[in-house]
Amino acid sequence: MCREMAEQPEVLRRILDTGAPEIQETARLVAEKKPRFVLLSARGTSDHAALYAKYLLEVRLGLPCGLTSMSTITAYGAKPDLRDVLVVTVSQSGGSPDLVASAQAAREAGAITLAVTNNPDSPLAAVCEHHIDILAGPERALPATKTYTAALLALHLFVEGLAGPGGDTGAALLPDLAAQLLDRQGEVKVLAARYRFAERMVITSRGYGYPTAKEAALKLMETSYIPALAYSGADLLHGPLAMVDNISPVIAVVPDGRGGEALQPVLDRLRGRGADLVVIGPKAQVEQASAGFVLPTDDVPEELQPILEIIPLQLLAYEVTIARGQDPDAPRALAKVTETR
Amino acid sequence: MCREMAEQPEVLRRILDTGAPEIQETARLVAEKKPRFVLLSARGTSDHAALYAKYLLEVRLGLPCGLTSMSTITAYGAKPDLRDVLVVTVSQSGGSPDLVASAQAAREAGAITLAVTNNPDSPLAAVCEHHIDILAGPERALPATKTYTAALLALHLFVEGLAGPGGDTGAALLPDLAAQLLDRQGEVKVLAARYRFAERMVITSRGYGYPTAKEAALKLMETSYIPALAYSGADLLHGPLAMVDNISPVIAVVPDGRGGEALQPVLDRLRGRGADLVVIGPKAQVEQASAGFVLPTDDVPEELQPILEIIPLQLLAYEVTIARGQDPDAPRALAKVTETR
Repeated sequence: MCREMAEQPEVLRRILDTGAPEIQETARLVAEKKPRFVLLSARGTSDHAALYAKYLLEVRLGLPCGLTSMSTITAYGAKPDLRDVLVVTVSQSGGSPDLVASAQAAREAGAITLAVTNNPDSPLAAVCEHHIDILAGPERALPATKTYTAALLALHLFVEGLAGPGGDTGAALLPDLAAQLLDRQGEVKVLAARYRFAERMVITSRGYGYPTAKEAALKLMETSYIPALAYSGADLLHGPLAMVDNISPVIAVVPDGRGGEALQPVLDRLRGRGADLVVIGPKAQVEQASAGFVLPTDDVPEELQPILEIIPLQLLAYEVTIARGQDPDAPRALAKVTETR
Repeated sequence: MCREMAEQPEVLRRILDTGAPEIQETARLVAEKKPRFVLLSARGTSDHAALYAKYLLEVRLGLPCGLTSMSTITAYGAKPDLRDVLVVTVSQSGGSPDLVASAQAAREAGAITLAVTNNPDSPLAAVCEHHIDILAGPERALPATKTYTAALLALHLFVEGLAGPGGDTGAALLPDLAAQLLDRQGEVKVLAARYRFAERMVITSRGYGYPTAKEAALKLMETSYIPALAYSGADLLHGPLAMVDNISPVIAVVPDGRGGEALQPVLDRLRGRGADLVVIGPKAQVEQASAGFVLPTDDVPEELQPILEIIPLQLLAYEVTIARGQDPDAPRALAKVTETR
């Protein structure tokens, strides 16, 4: 897991240098078909990448989007009318049978189908009309790390491609910034000590940061087994806030931009309740929190920040697990290709 | 909370006897506009009712659906193209500012708009073209109970209406069956004792039962403050299973039908790991579990079972909270109309 996290700058650079032209060509071919709606299918870590793409597609392109409830097709045999619908299936391995079946059913139902995988030879890539290779190289650790940031960047380039030829989006900065974050593992180790005996955690964010909150919660759960509950800031106020107090630590992912502004009232409420609040975000926000990790986001547009935000949280999952005397590379009960049907 | 749970048979009967014709007329008017895609917007408990509607719309009508990421409109000012899109906003109070703003923006973007609320005089009902009144009567307890089952039944009748004039769906049985479930509070009290000292819980299901799992988790969290994590059975295998062992109790909501069949491998894995597995579902499934609550679903089609499944779980949240010496009517930190923006 540690080695694969460390490969992220190199993987991001590879996507920008080698993968981008092909992704843009795929986007051009898809844009020609003028999709009016987008459905995204994925599970686990890839589902969080899909959620990131949903925000991008809605905000950047105004395309209405949905996340697929896979069982409607695989268990209930739903026959949806998918003309004018782009169905994007995200899967690291491209091998999960339910994703393959649901992509196949989507294609038969008239959808424009796109697979986003780390394996161009996978069954999923084969059943979809279009394919984007996230070029992350083999991932062996069970907790997915480099394939997550790779999928985010690939999806970002794809959505920018759908939007048409444009200027510099700031993505070129990401490999170096990712390397800087990885160099700060010592800071994360100090934060990790805080959670040595945590019984549970709440992770919150809003907007573009929300997929990061969900992915961070999954990373913490599958490595350290701490039950980590992810909520959008708005949903947190609709119920689960009752669960938060000074014994439930909260991590807030605060985007530098509109998502962070929308999260502000939630941060105020949490501070008012005396929550132990750790912020991953801009310096000014970290300074008002119990502790935190400052992200260098000055020159990075909000929609690219998720590619950076998750890195200290991956490191945190790793360090918390080590601190608790467990092995992050061998979570109990998990297989790398999950054979759900 | 206890009194409002007890009102559920009467509320269901009122919807069937009084509300159904108007819901069917609303469905007819919406169907005439031939929506091709549905977006559902809601938060908290209503979000779980919206998810139930998503399954119904996809399985019964083959309409591709998505759940709205509200912040794309309210925080990022996305301007989606919503022609041919039905936007359904579900809210008990009809008063949450972000839901009103997002429904208004949807209408301006060309959507067919429908509000599903417990208050026909609410701002949300006013901004939407169509409105369905769930007729649950005033709800004063903070944990929503009767408005949840009422919203499910109203949405079911709406989707059946969209599908066109049809035969008997079995809904007429629900009020009596709900009353029978409420009479079994003693059984639930015995189950509740099991969770007196639980530090966390996992709740799982699949298909039509998945919204029940999510709603049960929210009920448990907002009343007893036990961190309760809800996963679809498939997602559970993609990571969080690592967290489940004999100290993490699991509740499985097992639909009597295809959702239950799809959940079977997950139940086998959980039993194989020695999980403490409590089943809410058919007798045969309960008998193979550590304990459970048998649902009388013999004559109830799977898509109506969620209206029954949640009742023992509402009772469980109530009884667990009492067993832990807390007050289910006054969760910390929550307001009945949540003013998220």
